[in-house]
Amino acid sequence: MGATVRMVARVKSRRSTANRGAPSPSIELPAEALLGQRRVIIEGVRPCVDGGAFPAKRTLGDEMAVTADVFADGHDCLRARVQWRLDGVLEWDEGPMVALGNDRWQGMVPLLELGRYRFRVVAWIDPFRTWRRDMEKKIAAGVAEPIDFAVGAAMVRAALSRADGDRAPILKRAVAGLEAQGPSVGRRTVLDDELAAVMAGLDERLFASTSEPELEVVVDPVRARFSSWYECFPRSCAAAAGRHGTFADLEARLPYIAGMGFDVLYLPPIHPIGRKHRKGPNNSPTSAPGDHGSPWAIGAAEGGHTAVHPELGDLDAFRSLVAAARAKGIELALDIALQVAPDHPWVAEHPEWFRQRPDGTVQYAENPPKKYQDIYPFDFECAAWRELWAELRAVFEFWVAEGVTIFRVDNPHTKCFAFWQWCIGALKQQHPELIFLSEAFTRPKLMYRLAKLGFTQSYTYFPWRNHKTEIVEYFTEISRLELREFFRPNHWPNTPDILTAFLQTGGVRAFEIRLVLAATLGASYGVYGPAFELAEGRAVREGSEEYLDSEKYQLRHWDLDAKDSLRRLIARVNRIRRENPALQSDLGLRFHDTTADELICYSKSAADGNTAVLVVVNLDPHHRQSGHVELQLDAIGIDHEEQFQVHDLLSGARYLWRGARNYVELDPESTTAHVFVVRRRLRSEQDFDYFL
Amino acid sequence: MGATVRMVARVKSRRSTANRGAPSPSIELPAEALLGQRRVIIEGVRPCVDGGAFPAKRTLGDEMAVTADVFADGHDCLRARVQWRLDGVLEWDEGPMVALGNDRWQGMVPLLELGRYRFRVVAWIDPFRTWRRDMEKKIAAGVAEPIDFAVGAAMVRAALSRADGDRAPILKRAVAGLEAQGPSVGRRTVLDDELAAVMAGLDERLFASTSEPELEVVVDPVRARFSSWYECFPRSCAAAAGRHGTFADLEARLPYIAGMGFDVLYLPPIHPIGRKHRKGPNNSPTSAPGDHGSPWAIGAAEGGHTAVHPELGDLDAFRSLVAAARAKGIELALDIALQVAPDHPWVAEHPEWFRQRPDGTVQYAENPPKKYQDIYPFDFECAAWRELWAELRAVFEFWVAEGVTIFRVDNPHTKCFAFWQWCIGALKQQHPELIFLSEAFTRPKLMYRLAKLGFTQSYTYFPWRNHKTEIVEYFTEISRLELREFFRPNHWPNTPDILTAFLQTGGVRAFEIRLVLAATLGASYGVYGPAFELAEGRAVREGSEEYLDSEKYQLRHWDLDAKDSLRRLIARVNRIRRENPALQSDLGLRFHDTTADELICYSKSAADGNTAVLVVVNLDPHHRQSGHVELQLDAIGIDHEEQFQVHDLLSGARYLWRGARNYVELDPESTTAHVFVVRRRLRSEQDFDYFL
Repeated sequence: MGATVRMVARVKSRRSTANRGAPSPSIELPAEALLGQRRVIIEGVRPCVDGGAFPAKRTLGDEMAVTADVFADGHDCLRARVQWRLDGVLEWDEGPMVALGNDRWQGMVPLLELGRYRFRVVAWIDPFRTWRRDMEKKIAAGVAEPIDFAVGAAMVRAALSRADGDRAPILKRAVAGLEAQGPSVGRRTVLDDELAAVMAGLDERLFASTSEPELEVVVDPVRARFSSWYECFPRSCAAAAGRHGTFADLEARLPYIAGMGFDVLYLPPIHPIGRKHRKGPNNSPTSAPGDHGSPWAIGAAEGGHTAVHPELGDLDAFRSLVAAARAKGIELALDIALQVAPDHPWVAEHPEWFRQRPDGTVQYAENPPKKYQDIYPFDFECAAWRELWAELRAVFEFWVAEGVTIFRVDNPHTKCFAFWQWCIGALKQQHPELIFLSEAFTRPKLMYRLAKLGFTQSYTYFPWRNHKTEIVEYFTEISRLELREFFRPNHWPNTPDILTAFLQTGGVRAFEIRLVLAATLGASYGVYGPAFELAEGRAVREGSEEYLDSEKYQLRHWDLDAKDSLRRLIARVNRIRRENPALQSDLGLRFHDTTADELICYSKSAADGNTAVLVVVNLDPHHRQSGHVELQLDAIGIDHEEQFQVHDLLSGARYLWRGARNYVELDPESTTAHVFVVRRRLRSEQDFDYFL
Repeated sequence: MGATVRMVARVKSRRSTANRGAPSPSIELPAEALLGQRRVIIEGVRPCVDGGAFPAKRTLGDEMAVTADVFADGHDCLRARVQWRLDGVLEWDEGPMVALGNDRWQGMVPLLELGRYRFRVVAWIDPFRTWRRDMEKKIAAGVAEPIDFAVGAAMVRAALSRADGDRAPILKRAVAGLEAQGPSVGRRTVLDDELAAVMAGLDERLFASTSEPELEVVVDPVRARFSSWYECFPRSCAAAAGRHGTFADLEARLPYIAGMGFDVLYLPPIHPIGRKHRKGPNNSPTSAPGDHGSPWAIGAAEGGHTAVHPELGDLDAFRSLVAAARAKGIELALDIALQVAPDHPWVAEHPEWFRQRPDGTVQYAENPPKKYQDIYPFDFECAAWRELWAELRAVFEFWVAEGVTIFRVDNPHTKCFAFWQWCIGALKQQHPELIFLSEAFTRPKLMYRLAKLGFTQSYTYFPWRNHKTEIVEYFTEISRLELREFFRPNHWPNTPDILTAFLQTGGVRAFEIRLVLAATLGASYGVYGPAFELAEGRAVREGSEEYLDSEKYQLRHWDLDAKDSLRRLIARVNRIRRENPALQSDLGLRFHDTTADELICYSKSAADGNTAVLVVVNLDPHHRQSGHVELQLDAIGIDHEEQFQVHDLLSGARYLWRGARNYVELDPESTTAHVFVVRRRLRSEQDFDYFL
């Protein structure tokens, strides 16, 4: 007994014992009556984002696989169910889970409504099934004793109190069989499937465990997963050069846009444009009378974020545009930029929302040493943040009431993250059909955080991934399982801010290449036109990604009928996307090796696994490239060394391939890409009736 | 305005709207006043087990790296601190965090006391540092204006109210410099490091964010990470054959055990052994008078889990053994098997703790069709579970009071998981020095769960991993980052239940091989002796892993001085472990390719990265094997193509190697393994003074 009862090792005594006065959190027996008797463990429930802090994302009509590790001490038989309910619904729906092996279970949740679902896993020990399984073994081994039958009889008798008139007789017969009439009758009863089914239905779920925390999934419209965006400036849509375009002009252009197969039409801000410190053409710090300014310098005497720039038209014209677009299968997307021009009405009405400098002036936007005197950012640290948040949310609500369901949010990473979580959460609670595209060209973790806290889609680094290794690496990164649960990429080859060096130097073939990559690597993509389809490649100066004579600062007039326009190719690519489910999801992407650095090859397979699209792109806009692709045949559903047909949906050409290694040649003079559909089953002589 | 304000897509309407009567959880503005102004995001804090549901594990004296993603909207300068406090301490200690790149930050937490720590990350925007950084850029670009200096002056003036007498003058001078005396003085002030330091110290941490949830780490004694176990049956320790051994006999054997370098001595249950249904030798279902029975059939008229088997001695003899072992640097480990023999006093005193059958008898243990009439399991679903739990915990407390600090728990996976979490948590709260080894030879997820909820170490599948690919795969699996945070393997080549086919067929060389593997692959390992060092390989029958004449059912007398005993090799291996920190941790294990299937090669490097141990084992106990090792030189701290020395700590031999590819040959006739220490720095002619 002389031994040290408590061996306390103190490498270094850094605190006085007085500091230890905090009440030691005592570990008491669990308070909840049943807790100690719950023997089933549920952990690792998926999908799960950051331990349940954020919802996973799915789209309408998806069936969501919910998986979990489910196990208990000992060897008893378990049962598990997945449960779900839509936000606002009290009752849980539920479905069965099945064991996949290694204690992993899976159940399917049908997502039949838009909105936010909660889901969880419930599991318990099934004593009757356990008894039945053990009895089968004992009977087989000849060691079943009368008492073993009696144990089962007691269970069945207890279940009688829960049985209705139909099932009670079955149970009574079983009790009699197990109790009174000897092992031979008892044996038939043990093996009776009808009894097993009745007992399963009467299972009390005694001491059932429930997974914690409840997890969430947001169900978005299908367009959240699969969308083709077209951005254009309404003010450049006038039929005649030099005139300021209007909503009506854009409405007249809808057949052109729909003809290319786009289903989202995104407009830069449509609000009155500030006059103070207005920028001139090519971002000149000063403007002349008649200069139109930047649509992102929002607000003037005519109004702010809920007003329409008078030169574009009025609200009625806007409503007409929304309706006309929708009639063509196109949803309108508005750009929401939460910043103001110095003459935005809020600056005078709510000076408390902006950072005041010691001299009483408002702090304009800066990225030192650069200064943006035409833009005032909001001060999200201001004391009146509640009123500010409410008013900013009201901007979205205003446009939702006008029929807008899609918002492209400008630079969300320069606004308080908590605001977005609250704002998007509140908006989607009332309007689960809404889609928010995050324009956060910033560091990866900020982009991902915005996606977690509510943004439906996100711009990506795609514009700057040109080489094969860059593309493979980036798409592998954003295809990671945990990212896919909440991050939906939307790939843009160009934007009004981004005219990449590749597009500046590669001519029209560079635009073709980037189009095919964006539209087949990603389920959602977009282009800024007509600059894109007209292959506008002139930058304001060497080394800049800004367009020369950018529409951001002036009107442009585009020749939509130009000979080299990519509009027909775009239309074909978008039709291929519509007709091939493999291209409508970001799942199922696999890269395949090629023997040429400039040739990239990848496949996308649909969820049903039946149809695969195989893409080969020549990344070099200038030179013919040839080499072999080394296919991972399992990714495209082909058996080793089988002959199969690849049908190029772009050119219409068909090739017979065999096995993993096949030759390709792509010459920019004629074509830069193959978009093959893989046809596995080829007719052969064995398909003829008489071949038998 | 005619547009659909709410587009609700219902693929299938499955609920009546009446069911939607639940109050919709409205998204209100955040309640907490500051929440909206908190702009810093903290996520991905590590170490973290299951989102914080369980503590990570470390050992005394470790410095724990805490990492987190820390970022905010915009471009402001951030500061982050890691905070920690020992359970029961009110105040948080804290230390700095530094940015590692890609928004990942790291801080170090010194773990200087045993017990459970909480830790978290605090981060905020530093407005003064942000202003200073921006001002430096503006000054450099020549665009700093008087108002920019005034903004900083206002911050410094505000800080004056928080400054003490020493710092106030510095601030006052700075205000004057920034405000009144023109840009040249202001510029000097902006760049003044003393001002920056004072302002950093006065930082208000305005709108600071704190990571959630608070995470935990359990700090265990060093032996939790690095331990060498020896199991033996005290009743077989008598000096003379045929006599029942005692604690005193075992005490006399301590020099032998300490001489082999073990630091944990683990005894099978030491309690009175049941007489009802007692098993005879070789697990015979019946026993004869004089048979000793299985120590795991616990409890008889003499007492239960807190009594000592009279033939082993009394409590005084036990206490003497504990003290004598500790004097030799050995901690005693007791086996706690929570099950009873039919004549355990609890069966009569607490029939409610056991499952009663309809005929009033107690349900014995079964694994159908096998029956274990000599063992009654507890019914963890019984209504009296609270009393049961308390009494079982009291068993541990009894032996802790007798000086026991280590428990090997028998089959914990057949007892309710919640019980272990509560029991171990409560015990370690009072006695943070305790170590619990989980004997859960079961499916992986159950083993891992037991580790998460409190077990300090765990048995592993090591006994059955014999081939190179099996070993590499298994050790790669248990070295996964997320597992290492809570799962500490303890590798046993044999146990009283496990005499593997490899040991049965490989002779003494097989024992050598498994010893070197266990002791160098794992920081903790153990053997069941004297069966191990005497290379006892006789099984009860072909195809069984049970020993012939197993000590589980009878006394054995061992010839410790047998010629072939491995005791000297064991002593050498354990000394190598003590002298090489690389072998005292499960981190730093790397496998290296070899050109022979039967040769396995791996290295372990110490945390300091300076010393590496390189092991090569011939996995074939019968034949000479030779081939080349292909070293990953970075893992052992060697530059490409450098010459280095490998010094075999087993044989004493030294070899000069160069580069990645080196020849090895191991012949079981002489030796089965190399345990090299790698010496990087070789003397050369340049080390002589005159070589200059």
